[in-house]
Amino acid sequence: MAFIDKDFMLQSRTAQKLYHEHAEGMPIIDYHCHLVPKQIAENIQFRDITQLWLVDGHYGDHYKWRAMRANGVSEEYLTGGTRSSWETFEKWAATVPYTMRNPLYHWTHLELSRVFGIDKLLCPATAREIFEECNALLATEQFRGQALIRRFNVEVVCTTDDPADDLRYHKMILEHPFGTRVIPAWRPDKAMAIEDPKAYKAYLAQLGEAAGMEINSYSDLIDALQKRHDFFESMGCRLSDHGLETFYSAPYKQLEIDLIFKSVLLGKTPDAVALDKFRSAFLHDMAVMDANSGWTQQFHVGAIRNNNSRMFRLIGPDTGYDAIHDLPTAAAGHRFFDRLEAEGSLAKTILYCLNPKDNEVMMTMAYTFNDGTVPGKMQFGSGWWFLDQEDGMRKQMNALSTLGLLSRFVGMLTDSRSFISYPRHEYFRRILCDVIGKDVEEGKLPASELDFIGGMIEDICYFNAKNYFKF
Amino acid sequence: MAFIDKDFMLQSRTAQKLYHEHAEGMPIIDYHCHLVPKQIAENIQFRDITQLWLVDGHYGDHYKWRAMRANGVSEEYLTGGTRSSWETFEKWAATVPYTMRNPLYHWTHLELSRVFGIDKLLCPATAREIFEECNALLATEQFRGQALIRRFNVEVVCTTDDPADDLRYHKMILEHPFGTRVIPAWRPDKAMAIEDPKAYKAYLAQLGEAAGMEINSYSDLIDALQKRHDFFESMGCRLSDHGLETFYSAPYKQLEIDLIFKSVLLGKTPDAVALDKFRSAFLHDMAVMDANSGWTQQFHVGAIRNNNSRMFRLIGPDTGYDAIHDLPTAAAGHRFFDRLEAEGSLAKTILYCLNPKDNEVMMTMAYTFNDGTVPGKMQFGSGWWFLDQEDGMRKQMNALSTLGLLSRFVGMLTDSRSFISYPRHEYFRRILCDVIGKDVEEGKLPASELDFIGGMIEDICYFNAKNYFKF
Amino acid sequence: MAFIDKDFMLQSRTAQKLYHEHAEGMPIIDYHCHLVPKQIAENIQFRDITQLWLVDGHYGDHYKWRAMRANGVSEEYLTGGTRSSWETFEKWAATVPYTMRNPLYHWTHLELSRVFGIDKLLCPATAREIFEECNALLATEQFRGQALIRRFNVEVVCTTDDPADDLRYHKMILEHPFGTRVIPAWRPDKAMAIEDPKAYKAYLAQLGEAAGMEINSYSDLIDALQKRHDFFESMGCRLSDHGLETFYSAPYKQLEIDLIFKSVLLGKTPDAVALDKFRSAFLHDMAVMDANSGWTQQFHVGAIRNNNSRMFRLIGPDTGYDAIHDLPTAAAGHRFFDRLEAEGSLAKTILYCLNPKDNEVMMTMAYTFNDGTVPGKMQFGSGWWFLDQEDGMRKQMNALSTLGLLSRFVGMLTDSRSFISYPRHEYFRRILCDVIGKDVEEGKLPASELDFIGGMIEDICYFNAKNYFKF
Repeated sequence: MAFIDKDFMLQSRTAQKLYHEHAEGMPIIDYHCHLVPKQIAENIQFRDITQLWLVDGHYGDHYKWRAMRANGVSEEYLTGGTRSSWETFEKWAATVPYTMRNPLYHWTHLELSRVFGIDKLLCPATAREIFEECNALLATEQFRGQALIRRFNVEVVCTTDDPADDLRYHKMILEHPFGTRVIPAWRPDKAMAIEDPKAYKAYLAQLGEAAGMEINSYSDLIDALQKRHDFFESMGCRLSDHGLETFYSAPYKQLEIDLIFKSVLLGKTPDAVALDKFRSAFLHDMAVMDANSGWTQQFHVGAIRNNNSRMFRLIGPDTGYDAIHDLPTAAAGHRFFDRLEAEGSLAKTILYCLNPKDNEVMMTMAYTFNDGTVPGKMQFGSGWWFLDQEDGMRKQMNALSTLGLLSRFVGMLTDSRSFISYPRHEYFRRILCDVIGKDVEEGKLPASELDFIGGMIEDICYFNAKNYFKF
Repeated sequence: MAFIDKDFMLQSRTAQKLYHEHAEGMPIIDYHCHLVPKQIAENIQFRDITQLWLVDGHYGDHYKWRAMRANGVSEEYLTGGTRSSWETFEKWAATVPYTMRNPLYHWTHLELSRVFGIDKLLCPATAREIFEECNALLATEQFRGQALIRRFNVEVVCTTDDPADDLRYHKMILEHPFGTRVIPAWRPDKAMAIEDPKAYKAYLAQLGEAAGMEINSYSDLIDALQKRHDFFESMGCRLSDHGLETFYSAPYKQLEIDLIFKSVLLGKTPDAVALDKFRSAFLHDMAVMDANSGWTQQFHVGAIRNNNSRMFRLIGPDTGYDAIHDLPTAAAGHRFFDRLEAEGSLAKTILYCLNPKDNEVMMTMAYTFNDGTVPGKMQFGSGWWFLDQEDGMRKQMNALSTLGLLSRFVGMLTDSRSFISYPRHEYFRRILCDVIGKDVEEGKLPASELDFIGGMIEDICYFNAKNYFKF
Repeated sequence: MAFIDKDFMLQSRTAQKLYHEHAEGMPIIDYHCHLVPKQIAENIQFRDITQLWLVDGHYGDHYKWRAMRANGVSEEYLTGGTRSSWETFEKWAATVPYTMRNPLYHWTHLELSRVFGIDKLLCPATAREIFEECNALLATEQFRGQALIRRFNVEVVCTTDDPADDLRYHKMILEHPFGTRVIPAWRPDKAMAIEDPKAYKAYLAQLGEAAGMEINSYSDLIDALQKRHDFFESMGCRLSDHGLETFYSAPYKQLEIDLIFKSVLLGKTPDAVALDKFRSAFLHDMAVMDANSGWTQQFHVGAIRNNNSRMFRLIGPDTGYDAIHDLPTAAAGHRFFDRLEAEGSLAKTILYCLNPKDNEVMMTMAYTFNDGTVPGKMQFGSGWWFLDQEDGMRKQMNALSTLGLLSRFVGMLTDSRSFISYPRHEYFRRILCDVIGKDVEEGKLPASELDFIGGMIEDICYFNAKNYFKF
């Protein structure tokens, strides 16, 4: 009945054996996250635990913010900018016990334990001492950004970067390596966002500057992106990523896309049909680019964002006002991948869904386009965002297992902008070992094959990603 | 291996301890049910167990009817009116063993045990003796309506009432209190039902009479409803409720709504677009009214009703011919609440869904609109109707836990018109304690915090509702 | 911790007792499968295990193909026709360990054990000896098609047949009985497939020839189908089956259907509206035919097929490029059955869904149309295709239990074209007994009723199907 001890989450002997002998020691390949390259390059020293955990300039941990708002904490403590670090931390400490059964309860205590060596539970009674203990450690060299990453045996980190980004911080890191490779990843969402012509034109100016050309047509856009794609490639990039409400694969003619683009340049807001066609063309052309470079493309599908317009106006996106969408994905998704397959332009692909009802649809969609060239070419990705928790991970693992090959899974990623979220890899590994260990103990997998099974665990934790992405 | 003993549903020591020390003794706040105020006020004496359980005039237990029809019982025993109480009961008794694993099997034996002290299993062999034993008890004073409610330590009951209702029975109860507060709740579904202009006009006449005014325009409608809302408030009402297929939040102009209303008054059946606009306006205006009064609004979303038109013509609604719908809810729901939030008119809210695929959508939708003013302001409600069973409750608790704060949950309600359905609160509490007890025993929650966890159980069973609704 | 021993999947004593005393010995009624009548009639002798398991002319096991493609096996080993039986088998053997947690891992070893008496695990090290051992056995009389079926105590097999089929092989089997009844089932999908006018006209020619008449109108079509329906009836047929993306129940006038049909005969491809109307009319008329004959109609809903157009052109349908669809089903499904119910033409019905998110919708839809004439008249069918695995079966059993009567379930079917897939009935029975045994051991079902519960197991494994279909 101990909490977060060495056998945390491991309910069987076999699970414990698998974890300690095969999972625990594996390096981490964090192939999708939102760490800020500048903070890595400059080897950030955190002012205090409040900056690290709760409020970091414009940013912050929207998971914690949602929980605090639900717990009756007023906004001034979160994004108001008028409360001290301690006052904000105190509110979080008072909220923590109320997060029992939410992943935040486990994440918080895993991070306290694994990063700071603190095994006390965070609550109002312990808040002050934990605040001070963390802050004292954060003032030391061993708790600067790069050391925090190194502490977790992270071999590779892929950040998430805009095509217009000059990747200067990635260059800085390359010139001053610290033991973990930090690689850019390509996220061209802004280059698709024609729904706001004014913002789009401003973005095109940036992109054009980065590419050293003017963008006056859709074909210029693709040319500029190709130049940036080549540059990203030269900087080690091997993955792209797209955040979508659903898939887009409307039929279109190239001439239509050219006209839509021109019309947006003239400031005209596109209607729903034009938007759908443009997105269909754009995503297809991006997918072809990735296939040509041998990259892996990722699709994060199913968020409905910025739903609280009052708060959006006040504090912008990614502040805890997003939710799970329920659009259909099967028909459009299959059309999208079918076209690429037929054209011979289907890159390695990872599909993530935010609505767990889509697990089986996404999983069977992915496996409909395997062609035998690469083991696990089409992947159903790990539980994402709201689903990055025990229940979500178990459902993802079960859908993947029963409808495909768990053994070929490229495994966990943090999708986080925190320097100390790596215990989520530990959490994932413990759950994975618990799932498989239980199957062995119940005779659903053969105990005689424990060596193979141990190897499978190592593959999912590390080697599959290593072989798949070929960084 | 005993059945419905003192540790029923409690699979671990911790679960048993939590239940007996923290859940069992809590009073019940049944904040949403369909008890008939007249039957409470008149302290109904049931003719026999058949009336109480199976057939009560036009009404009856549609859960049992569905099960009996599926078991091959002919309609004449249910709604035919030609069979004796005993004959109907006998058919139910023969069906009960075939309901194993359905909640009816547990509900039936919990009610026999907790209400009548009968621990025999109901089946053809025991049917006659159980029939007679129950009927003998029902003939006594201690088994009249009010005593049945009191037996379960029910502090508050909220009924479900139409705005046109004069609440005379609520007044009678206020004048002759019996230990349980009986409070009306506001369900204006009929005031939105313009799809049948003839029935709607008849309803407006009733509503106008109740409000002491003529209703000749949409603005009259809202005025009349405001008067009734004020009257309900004066009678202690603190909750509203809406039964919806999905959310409605189409854009509209007030002039359009006025014209649609006029056109319905002239007998014209509105088309789909007009219906959507009218419902969007109506639900918004109702929500504003609730926010102004500090009430809690409830939305029951996702039923498809009266699907068997032959039986609907014969025996009307709520007779066992409803099912689970699969319309999308995310986009319309977010628009609906966003507008209210932006206008400062978002009341405390509970969302219930009938399709379990919507659990995660509804849950994240609710939590997107917490503003820190009230802990748990936006609630994801307990498993409703078809989902009011072990599997449904566990899924609701897991969605609520992993995506929000279980600790702030206002807990269980019966949603029933039966005087003896209160064991469903016991059932819920046992499952809740089983869920949390298991987490403690598996080290997922800290055993050291059992006092806090016990308090959390008490909160979910009783105190959260007490503090949230402020009756 | 043994694997596939006598208590495989049975995690409790009660589960073991229920299985061995009540499930294990029951005969099999395989009321829906895709066995090829010719192969049964001719008592096929398999060339080798590769033909039986992996590649049989145009056909093959698309489950295994999908897994092999995902494991990086090149198409030439599957459908290329250039690799030897051994080479293909070797690739499968190398893939098997990578299918752990997929049903293929269990199916493969159950089939090796139950059919061939081989308890070794298939992997590269054992591939050659298992290949040779199986092939040696397959060369004997006791391993020809009919003996393989007899080995599993199969009482009845229903194949899946086109209305134009002359059922000559069914006649051959009738004339040379081998202990298992082989009955045709009616699958008129091609008679609905007007989306390809050319293929449709060719099909109508075949159908007309089978019915001994020309088909020049929709009413001719129905007449021809009625003749074939009568013929199928005379051959023992008692079930129909339809494979649908979703339900169709658009309003239509008979004249519209006549015109759509004429227009298709003239080679015109129908638009979406015409297709929907035609399918609505056709399915309704088929349902009426089934009701008139007292048959059971089956609806398999929710596949999205032939999604990989490049591979479809190369190797045709049913080759592993299908997936799970996500269309809504509730509104159209209810309208479809409501009309039949109102007309007094609703046959016994089994609904299967491929998307597990539809379990609750389908289950409540079915139970909305029970009329008390036949116990379990409307059935929610067993986990289908992608869902025919442990997780899918448990979800189906739970949806059926909590929303209906598990006790009245007609149970398992293979839906397979393999002569050795009968262990899937064993697998189903073990899971069923595990589910119910656990409930008993946890006190959720009364241990005192083990005799009744044992009878319920026997019913679900055998007697319910026997009484329901009345072969």
